[in-house]
Amino acid sequence: MVSNLRYISSSQIEEIFFNEAVLPKFESLMAQGNGYLEVRNSLEESYRTGSRGMFVAGVFNQYSNQEVIELANFPDLLATSIKVNGQIVDLKLNVAQGYSRKIDYKTGETIRHFYWSDGKGLDLEITFKRFVSMANQHLIVNQISLQANQACQLEIESGINGQITNSGSQHFEEGEKRYHQDQYLQLVTETSNTRIPISLNCVHRLNQKSTKRITMNRRQLKEMHSVNLSANQCLDYTKYCLVFTGRDIDYTENSAESYLREMPLEMLSEVSQKSYEALFQASKEKWSAIWQNAPIKITAADFKDELMLNFARYHLHAMSPVHDSRMNIGAKGMTGEGYKGHTFWDTEIFILPYFTYNYPQSAKHLIEYRIQSLAAAQKNAQANGFQGAQYPWESAWLTDGEVTPKFGGIDIVSGKPTPVLTGDLEHHVTGDVVFGAAEYISITGDASFKAEILPMVIQCAIFWSTRAAWNETKQRYEINEVIGPDEYTEHVNNNAYTNYMAKYTIDLALEYIHADSDMAEMMISKSAYQRLMAVSSQLYLPIPNETQVIPQDDTFLSKPIIDLRKYLETEEVLTILGDYNMSQINNLQVLKQADVVLLLLLFPEKFSKEVKLANWNYYYPKTLHDSSLSKSSHCNLALMLDEVETAYELFRSNFVIDLSDRNMNSSNDGVHAASLGGIWQNVILGFGGLRIHENQLSLTPKLPKNWDKLEYMVKFKQQKINVVITHNQVALSCDDNNSEIELVFMNQKVKFQDTITLYY
Amino acid sequence: MVSNLRYISSSQIEEIFFNEAVLPKFESLMAQGNGYLEVRNSLEESYRTGSRGMFVAGVFNQYSNQEVIELANFPDLLATSIKVNGQIVDLKLNVAQGYSRKIDYKTGETIRHFYWSDGKGLDLEITFKRFVSMANQHLIVNQISLQANQACQLEIESGINGQITNSGSQHFEEGEKRYHQDQYLQLVTETSNTRIPISLNCVHRLNQKSTKRITMNRRQLKEMHSVNLSANQCLDYTKYCLVFTGRDIDYTENSAESYLREMPLEMLSEVSQKSYEALFQASKEKWSAIWQNAPIKITAADFKDELMLNFARYHLHAMSPVHDSRMNIGAKGMTGEGYKGHTFWDTEIFILPYFTYNYPQSAKHLIEYRIQSLAAAQKNAQANGFQGAQYPWESAWLTDGEVTPKFGGIDIVSGKPTPVLTGDLEHHVTGDVVFGAAEYISITGDASFKAEILPMVIQCAIFWSTRAAWNETKQRYEINEVIGPDEYTEHVNNNAYTNYMAKYTIDLALEYIHADSDMAEMMISKSAYQRLMAVSSQLYLPIPNETQVIPQDDTFLSKPIIDLRKYLETEEVLTILGDYNMSQINNLQVLKQADVVLLLLLFPEKFSKEVKLANWNYYYPKTLHDSSLSKSSHCNLALMLDEVETAYELFRSNFVIDLSDRNMNSSNDGVHAASLGGIWQNVILGFGGLRIHENQLSLTPKLPKNWDKLEYMVKFKQQKINVVITHNQVALSCDDNNSEIELVFMNQKVKFQDTITLYY
Repeated sequence: MVSNLRYISSSQIEEIFFNEAVLPKFESLMAQGNGYLEVRNSLEESYRTGSRGMFVAGVFNQYSNQEVIELANFPDLLATSIKVNGQIVDLKLNVAQGYSRKIDYKTGETIRHFYWSDGKGLDLEITFKRFVSMANQHLIVNQISLQANQACQLEIESGINGQITNSGSQHFEEGEKRYHQDQYLQLVTETSNTRIPISLNCVHRLNQKSTKRITMNRRQLKEMHSVNLSANQCLDYTKYCLVFTGRDIDYTENSAESYLREMPLEMLSEVSQKSYEALFQASKEKWSAIWQNAPIKITAADFKDELMLNFARYHLHAMSPVHDSRMNIGAKGMTGEGYKGHTFWDTEIFILPYFTYNYPQSAKHLIEYRIQSLAAAQKNAQANGFQGAQYPWESAWLTDGEVTPKFGGIDIVSGKPTPVLTGDLEHHVTGDVVFGAAEYISITGDASFKAEILPMVIQCAIFWSTRAAWNETKQRYEINEVIGPDEYTEHVNNNAYTNYMAKYTIDLALEYIHADSDMAEMMISKSAYQRLMAVSSQLYLPIPNETQVIPQDDTFLSKPIIDLRKYLETEEVLTILGDYNMSQINNLQVLKQADVVLLLLLFPEKFSKEVKLANWNYYYPKTLHDSSLSKSSHCNLALMLDEVETAYELFRSNFVIDLSDRNMNSSNDGVHAASLGGIWQNVILGFGGLRIHENQLSLTPKLPKNWDKLEYMVKFKQQKINVVITHNQVALSCDDNNSEIELVFMNQKVKFQDTITLYY
Repeated sequence: MVSNLRYISSSQIEEIFFNEAVLPKFESLMAQGNGYLEVRNSLEESYRTGSRGMFVAGVFNQYSNQEVIELANFPDLLATSIKVNGQIVDLKLNVAQGYSRKIDYKTGETIRHFYWSDGKGLDLEITFKRFVSMANQHLIVNQISLQANQACQLEIESGINGQITNSGSQHFEEGEKRYHQDQYLQLVTETSNTRIPISLNCVHRLNQKSTKRITMNRRQLKEMHSVNLSANQCLDYTKYCLVFTGRDIDYTENSAESYLREMPLEMLSEVSQKSYEALFQASKEKWSAIWQNAPIKITAADFKDELMLNFARYHLHAMSPVHDSRMNIGAKGMTGEGYKGHTFWDTEIFILPYFTYNYPQSAKHLIEYRIQSLAAAQKNAQANGFQGAQYPWESAWLTDGEVTPKFGGIDIVSGKPTPVLTGDLEHHVTGDVVFGAAEYISITGDASFKAEILPMVIQCAIFWSTRAAWNETKQRYEINEVIGPDEYTEHVNNNAYTNYMAKYTIDLALEYIHADSDMAEMMISKSAYQRLMAVSSQLYLPIPNETQVIPQDDTFLSKPIIDLRKYLETEEVLTILGDYNMSQINNLQVLKQADVVLLLLLFPEKFSKEVKLANWNYYYPKTLHDSSLSKSSHCNLALMLDEVETAYELFRSNFVIDLSDRNMNSSNDGVHAASLGGIWQNVILGFGGLRIHENQLSLTPKLPKNWDKLEYMVKFKQQKINVVITHNQVALSCDDNNSEIELVFMNQKVKFQDTITLYY
């Protein structure tokens, strides 16, 4: 099938013809958001496929106690039906000419355009423009411009549709529908279980005379405008939408009436006096400031490399609720229902570095989410028979604790849904959250933040010390019965990644404790402290075997190896589950994703290059990359091993995860947040060679041959340093030419003021 | 727009081309059911419009306490996607030739057929057949036959889809999905609030070799079959579905595991060994028996007159849960979500006579539903400050009491939803249920049933006696603050219909009490009895005024009269609500539907022909027929006034309610059950002139000039009498030629044995 996805430039993609079968792909790739809310780019018309979705960060609900809590799919604001002389504009019924839908990832605007013929001589030109405002987080504006070669009668109907569900699960009450002042449509309702109120508001403005009719159906409120349009006259139909919820920072129950009902109408009156262009301009400027804050430019043979990066960065800003530290990033952001809006370790290990390096205040908010979840993590540990804090594998609202679903897709052997064990067994997240927080301090030098993360670090360490069990025979602590990052290996003992992460956490806690024993004394009992010391010194850490391979766990290396070519050759993921069920896969040497490879990457100093290489050679061929978290880690480890072109291939294969024009179903439920973070890590920490560790800046660039130049900016010790990398030199320049910058370049210490050019 | 609805014969209609815009019409008109369950005739393919619906009698649920309880829309079993060489069969994408979908109302089968071209030379002929079995109430069978002019690869996917909602409100838990024995798909789940378990089961059988793939998504379980079909080879793809619920008569909680899980699989194994044709044959025979039981034939200039009747009868049997006296008929049956599956007075006044005259055992079950609801009606009376039993305006399960929603469509003046006051004020239903039960006894002569309805009659009478209030000034009892049958007149005093119905109820109770005072003594206190006597003798009954007009209520005749032509000329209903809100309409002399007219019709002996005529002349021109309950009553009153051709016009206008090819949206939410009953009443009780009252058969036929002959059968005192009416004679014949039949023919007493021909 010919693809309808075209790559225009390093910041734009285009849907070049309408194909109903792949609408969900574009809904996700072109989703628009501002961190507060995100809307899938569903078309104004309705078709068989496509799944409308709008999500607001923090607005979680549980349909019933037989389902887990999830980000609730909001009532729709954007569906609009257009009739010309009574005939509905439908791209399947009459062929449209010149179809195009574009998104500009630098501005967040989508523009769609086509000529539609009624088959009887009437040609209608329609342009749709849409953005979610970065300047006013509550605001969405949609403009439809219509012009025909003949006089015609147009009927345009739109409103608020609360019949939307999360794949059938309805999260909202029907609520109160109101038509205010003969122009404003308002729906005030609340989630069915968590009782979070929401307020949806919209008004339609037309630049031509119209008559209108308002209808209320079940869960629906619609306004239809009829316009008699002269030939070649242009109708601009602009819809202004405002979204407010009880989870907003400004919301208090005392002012609910005003906040959810009166104020939105006032704001609607105000914004709807402004033009689409004026409101878009304000949003564009905010986007511009975000890009300016951390400029990156790749000069490459293929502009798609920079496109992938801009795509990633756009979505990270659209999906991440960094304005509010009570919220975190979902595994698909808010671009779809996938993973239910839940936060995973994806945040700390894959996404957080992007914010830490470039937007430290945002990173801090993401870490504060974990700090504020500490009580729930403590409860979780207790419920599971441990002490300290056990962070949930999947988390939603601060107080929800573990929210991992219990079942997934079909088990082809039993005919039942496959049990999902990650919530019970995948414990490394409790190390990952500490790692992410500590890296933030290490990278930003924000030492004052240590005090804030201290209770979390100590509680996580206590968890690990009680999670570890004493093996009397082997005279060591072990961590048994876990799932490591490789989720194709369940119920294993001493997963290397997990054990190293546990040891790291405990040692960090001990370091903090030893640094400020007075403070620590209030936070940890003597016996708990002693347990930390004991586990720290006696926890079993799998070491490289005679062939330098670190055993992924106690049994992995003894399992059969099978031919994986069939699964590696396809761009689809999880195809192995069509042949084996989970308990069968558990008994094979097959990895879903980076496991030991990730360990080597996160703790590069702990392992020699020889060990890294041996493990790369062993595990890479056995890895199916059936998780979007895999390829970027492999890319960066390949770079450490100077396998630059292999790394480049791996980097390029990140493209398949979301942006590819070949696998058009991969993003149906949303784009892959961890992959987005991984793409940035590949560019800047990988090819760009940047590292800040313990207050030390280092640069070890490794450009692939397809790239001519990589330019980016580093913030280091209140300085902004511009980095320009070409194949044999690195030019550095600093905005503030009064201070001296010290860095390690290709393992050599270098100092400079103002500018310097380094050769390699 | 050219209509795609064709009337083939007196028992068949056809959709002659595909038009997405009117799919809901055909889904309702061609809905299939057996009284236990009913399925809308949604297409196998998915389109923008259309609303899938399957309902099982008695399976009610309440989404939340902000909504009322309603008949839950079940997970879908019939959606099927067909791909030919990877291309989806979609009637909007490639033009289909020879499109036809037919239903035969005599057999309940629908057959759809078309040729679909892939645009590259491949022509695929597809035939879809479907029925809901009358022989096995749990069974639905769908067969798709495919044949192409070229070898091709077919992918057919179908299964169970639990993402269906009632306009956005989800009534079921996700439940347990299972794929048993590598062939049977099973979903066992339950309603979210009423906790009624349900079990959906299906298996796909193919007459050609296939490979298959099973997938489980959220709320979905699907099986995809791939078939390599040779040129001109025929694939028969047959889907057998079985539905069981916790509301089934055979269900007990003890046997839940077996009843919902094991037994359905056994039955599925059994039925799927039979061919579509064999199973359909069994169902067809049951339908045939139903028709044979009460044959009616209209020989007319236009076969659509008989079509309308057969359409009505088909749907009455498909929608009426007469197998189980714990259930009753919804205002749209189970043909759609309209009126939420609730039972209204529609049953007793409009539908019950059909069953009473023709299927008395079914009628008895419908009345027993009211008897079994007596406790809830007593609670309802008490909650409203009255004694006795107050039947709810809308009712669902036996114990639910009043379930009328609180709000309807928009109030164009306030911008808020219009309050629905019928549940609070429309009290006449408590007379109507008694009227229906007493008529059953009067018509069938089933005197033994009196004892069963006695408690209900007494309790309803007590309600009316406490509902009536003493007017000291006028020295009479009055019934104030009600809505009568005409719902465009709210908050009125002494609605004539209501007051007469109250008096009727009280007098019937007194008659029963006086007939068996011992029994009655146990059922009514002395003071309550005295109150009945007092209200009976002193209840105000509006009488004809100086112009012989019975005032509809105390104030109606003094309100302004407006020009209604604008609203009468359109076939759409409720258009007046676009210009006036309810409180404005309340102050006009405009009727939604028959009110005094219905009173005259139900109690013909109480009013002279002169009074009937005066009221007809007064109220008919002021009636918008904005309820489907209006035209059939007007038709039969016109016949009493010998206005045969006006009556015929009114009868024909029943066509507009559902079957019309002009108003293609009127049945979107389901067909109109009361109208169906009204159509039968027009034919048999109206033009056919049949009446059985107090054990007396009478015939006063009045054929319209467009009819040549009307033939039907009457069951009277264990006899079956065939009636053949032409324009000047009536031929009667009796199966049992040993007994003498006595009847009143055109006001003359007549006796006969065997056969008789009467002239008029």
